[in-house]
Amino acid sequence: MRTADLIMTKRDGGTMSESDVRAFIRGYTDGDIPDYQAAALLMAIFFRGMQTTEFVAWTDAMLHSGDVLDLSDITGFKVDKHSTGGVGDKISLILAPLVACAGVPVPMISGRGLGHTGGTLDKLESIPGFVTALPVSRFRELVATLGCGLIGQTPEIAPADRKLYALRDATSTVECIPLIASSIMSKKLAEGIDGLVLDVKTGSGAFMRRYEDAVELAKTMIAIGEGAGREVVALVTDMNAPLGSHVGNALEVIESCDVLRGKPGVVRELTLELGVEMVRMGRRGGDRAAIRQELEAMLDDGRAMARFAAIVEAQGGDVRALYDYTRLPTARHRVELRADRSGKVDSFVCNDVGRASMMLGAGRARKEDFVDPAAGVVLHVERGTRVQSGDLLAELFFNDDRQLGAAVALLRASIAVGEGGVEVPPLVLTRL
Amino acid sequence: MRTADLIMTKRDGGTMSESDVRAFIRGYTDGDIPDYQAAALLMAIFFRGMQTTEFVAWTDAMLHSGDVLDLSDITGFKVDKHSTGGVGDKISLILAPLVACAGVPVPMISGRGLGHTGGTLDKLESIPGFVTALPVSRFRELVATLGCGLIGQTPEIAPADRKLYALRDATSTVECIPLIASSIMSKKLAEGIDGLVLDVKTGSGAFMRRYEDAVELAKTMIAIGEGAGREVVALVTDMNAPLGSHVGNALEVIESCDVLRGKPGVVRELTLELGVEMVRMGRRGGDRAAIRQELEAMLDDGRAMARFAAIVEAQGGDVRALYDYTRLPTARHRVELRADRSGKVDSFVCNDVGRASMMLGAGRARKEDFVDPAAGVVLHVERGTRVQSGDLLAELFFNDDRQLGAAVALLRASIAVGEGGVEVPPLVLTRL
Repeated sequence: MRTADLIMTKRDGGTMSESDVRAFIRGYTDGDIPDYQAAALLMAIFFRGMQTTEFVAWTDAMLHSGDVLDLSDITGFKVDKHSTGGVGDKISLILAPLVACAGVPVPMISGRGLGHTGGTLDKLESIPGFVTALPVSRFRELVATLGCGLIGQTPEIAPADRKLYALRDATSTVECIPLIASSIMSKKLAEGIDGLVLDVKTGSGAFMRRYEDAVELAKTMIAIGEGAGREVVALVTDMNAPLGSHVGNALEVIESCDVLRGKPGVVRELTLELGVEMVRMGRRGGDRAAIRQELEAMLDDGRAMARFAAIVEAQGGDVRALYDYTRLPTARHRVELRADRSGKVDSFVCNDVGRASMMLGAGRARKEDFVDPAAGVVLHVERGTRVQSGDLLAELFFNDDRQLGAAVALLRASIAVGEGGVEVPPLVLTRL
Repeated sequence: MRTADLIMTKRDGGTMSESDVRAFIRGYTDGDIPDYQAAALLMAIFFRGMQTTEFVAWTDAMLHSGDVLDLSDITGFKVDKHSTGGVGDKISLILAPLVACAGVPVPMISGRGLGHTGGTLDKLESIPGFVTALPVSRFRELVATLGCGLIGQTPEIAPADRKLYALRDATSTVECIPLIASSIMSKKLAEGIDGLVLDVKTGSGAFMRRYEDAVELAKTMIAIGEGAGREVVALVTDMNAPLGSHVGNALEVIESCDVLRGKPGVVRELTLELGVEMVRMGRRGGDRAAIRQELEAMLDDGRAMARFAAIVEAQGGDVRALYDYTRLPTARHRVELRADRSGKVDSFVCNDVGRASMMLGAGRARKEDFVDPAAGVVLHVERGTRVQSGDLLAELFFNDDRQLGAAVALLRASIAVGEGGVEVPPLVLTRL
């Protein structure tokens, strides 16, 4: 089929055949199909969506546009987790060593942050010496021996996705559920995993603001995973407030270590929810309550922390920094944000907390931006906290004060202190 | 505004500002905005349409991307006609000299045919020696002295449209009313005309199959013309049957000359309808019936024919060919199509008559295709003609018989001989 005819098919609401989808992805990756035809097709997909057969083939073709890791020589059912991104989401740093500790191999390949959400790689790299760009052979060794390796995507993984993502970014075709799902899944399925647990976030701090969109994205990714013969479970979780108190790269390492040493709260809670899913999947079943108890014990008795330290050491990081936080990058400046009225913290404008942190240097507005590992925000309140006028709401940490005024104003406006009585939604909204 | 944001505005149903539209057209023509962003915007426009302010600015920006003729030194209100294209539509060849003869200057710049409809330039060039690529100075002289010149678009006219049209063709974004309207009008408004009469065709032989689409296209072109301070009138006309008996380039010259010498029928009728509009516009008013009588007289007494001959001579054509048709390109082969049953001709599949003619060599499937001036079809029946089995329905003329079988089959299937009683719609469906 001519590419113009394929575009017309999609434009007019038809279904692309599996072979046409494969030919398109191959032709585009090879440079035989020009960017402008791909751009028109992407916009038509934006408006028309994709059928299951289409996005399964689309993902599979992207996945096979590059290297696919084969970890079949490593014993065990290999499971990874993917989060669609949120503010203060440091779960991977805790969850990966915890699940590995429970005997389930976790070959975790992560991305960098863009926009108001952070990236796992950026957080890990705030640990002095930590290397995320390991050779595949070393990654394989870590998964085999420690049950976990934490690396970044290599350029050889899903090059079609990289090329298409750049085009989507330039042509305003990013916000399209089947394209988002296929982009995520093409990279995840290239990792050589057997199963995947998805944390699909919804709310004011998530890409999917609407619950219905989050559910659709989750279902789309599950269909892709199942189409590729993988087991996939998705939790749709609340992202109307930052996940935990710390937002920013080194700051999130601190909170992660605290949780790995038994600190209670929402970060621990979500880690356990996802951990139970991963361990059940890795063990091909098991009693949820028993697994949860087992994981809680590993957080409480230091085993999970020890596993994280072992991984950090194996990947070149300074383990002392996990125990002595002054060895982590530290901001030169700190500003306190205090309540200007008394009341109860009713809600957050969650993405604005992320944006304030980004303005302090903790995130990237553009891909090429530098990230300041020390910058960020520490919240001293959560939804439902009662405050008096003058109480500490948050601290801002920064080295570069060029956008400080705007960051402070945005952070203040993002914390709604009111009369109370606003209901906090459950952390896990649904399991799919 | 960043181009990606402009695309997002349109994608999400917003309205592009006039200055953003102008910046886009300028940036795209200059090569500062890449094809892939233009392609995404075109597809978003396909789905979202354009508001009046948007397509007026879009057309004006395309028009000013190149040369704009200034014919203000030529006396009179200059009027042109544009047809959206149909099968057997040779009206321009008769109408332009006729209206010029009535004292209204007609600076006519035409295009070539593509697909199942013919182009005025191709028809004119079937007259031996006729030159359509005249210098602008010579064109101006013809309009000033003979009241009419018949030339083709120069590359300097609306280059933005040329670049965008090629992109639309490759990205399946051709069938979009505001883009069609702005493409036509940007070229017409560059001609230096004061007024324009549009013949917007609808039916099985037209690009606009549905009457509602034809009306919308007409209204969009009128809004663009008025936005540019020009007078525009549109007739929406029936294209469910070929316009006249002759389809093909030299064949249509023959029928045009016949009509210029007084032959009655649908071609004369439509010429008069459009002619009355053009003359009334050019004279800034006047009684329709009186103008019609005046034009009829010019067709009947040979004045219109003499004017056409003068134009042909001035543009290098062999005038003798207008009186001795054997001097026009003549096909080596002729095949007769005869009725295989008795009955009444109920209807035509009009575009299939055009496609049959194209298969014989009379039209282009692709822009670079060669056109055989001698090839085509002559119909011996019209809607309502009573035929006996064995009667002549049509003749096919050709030099190249490679697609003859398919052309004969298509032509036969396109003429429905039935029980009669099918109503023929009026020629002019509405005037806007």
